[in-house]
Amino acid sequence: MPARISFTLRPVAVVRSSLKHRRDAPRQGREGAPDVWLDVAPQFAKALHGIAVGQELILITWLHHASRSTLKVHPRCDKKMPLTGVFATRSPDRPNPLGLHEVRVLEIAGTRLKVGPLEAIDGTPVVDIKPILCP
Amino acid sequence: MPARISFTLRPVAVVRSSLKHRRDAPRQGREGAPDVWLDVAPQFAKALHGIAVGQELILITWLHHASRSTLKVHPRCDKKMPLTGVFATRSPDRPNPLGLHEVRVLEIAGTRLKVGPLEAIDGTPVVDIKPILCP
Repeated sequence: MPARISFTLRPVAVVRSSLKHRRDAPRQGREGAPDVWLDVAPQFAKALHGIAVGQELILITWLHHASRSTLKVHPRCDKKMPLTGVFATRSPDRPNPLGLHEVRVLEIAGTRLKVGPLEAIDGTPVVDIKPILCP
Repeated sequence: MPARISFTLRPVAVVRSSLKHRRDAPRQGREGAPDVWLDVAPQFAKALHGIAVGQELILITWLHHASRSTLKVHPRCDKKMPLTGVFATRSPDRPNPLGLHEVRVLEIAGTRLKVGPLEAIDGTPVVDIKPILCP
């Protein structure tokens, strides 16, 4: 696996949220996060066909304020927790700062989707949208 | 959201699997996929600390054989299913071809992890590893 290989991600949507700063964001969506609007880029309108209100989706975001050089963290920023490899945690700080979020679709207006709850802050790029598979 | 924005993903590991071709791969891991080895790049060894045998992980892969220009597909390649937006399906063909896989850790040998079952084919780059959160 040569280290020089890389891949280019392009945002497909952006989060419009009342959460403006990372310090205000809960650690997970179910810990009191707000509902948000996703502005999907118009060129991806066709890719939304079939998404319905009430459906549960997985969003993959690019956590644009994260540190990519951090390899160990105290889980949940709690200094009493032992330093742990980032791949064993959900820390936003990781080599590829991808966020994974389960949300419900609340409203659809053209290429805008209201979803929630979501802990990602205003302006966070969304790089993929997937349905949750039934177990 | 200017269209020129992009982000650079770097592989953190690669899949070593007996599945060599996309045509041989089951659609989902639980549909008969094999166990595989993940070769994690040595520079990310510290990021693995805390991962244990028996744990369930989410892998995010880069599906390197996918088409990035496909916006609609017949789900599960079944022509009887109506054409559906890729964001409403788990098709590998999508603007950012990220794969999402739940696997169990079976063995750990240095920076190699045996995990399974995994439907991603041999040589698939892994771009993130995350623990599954308890509900």
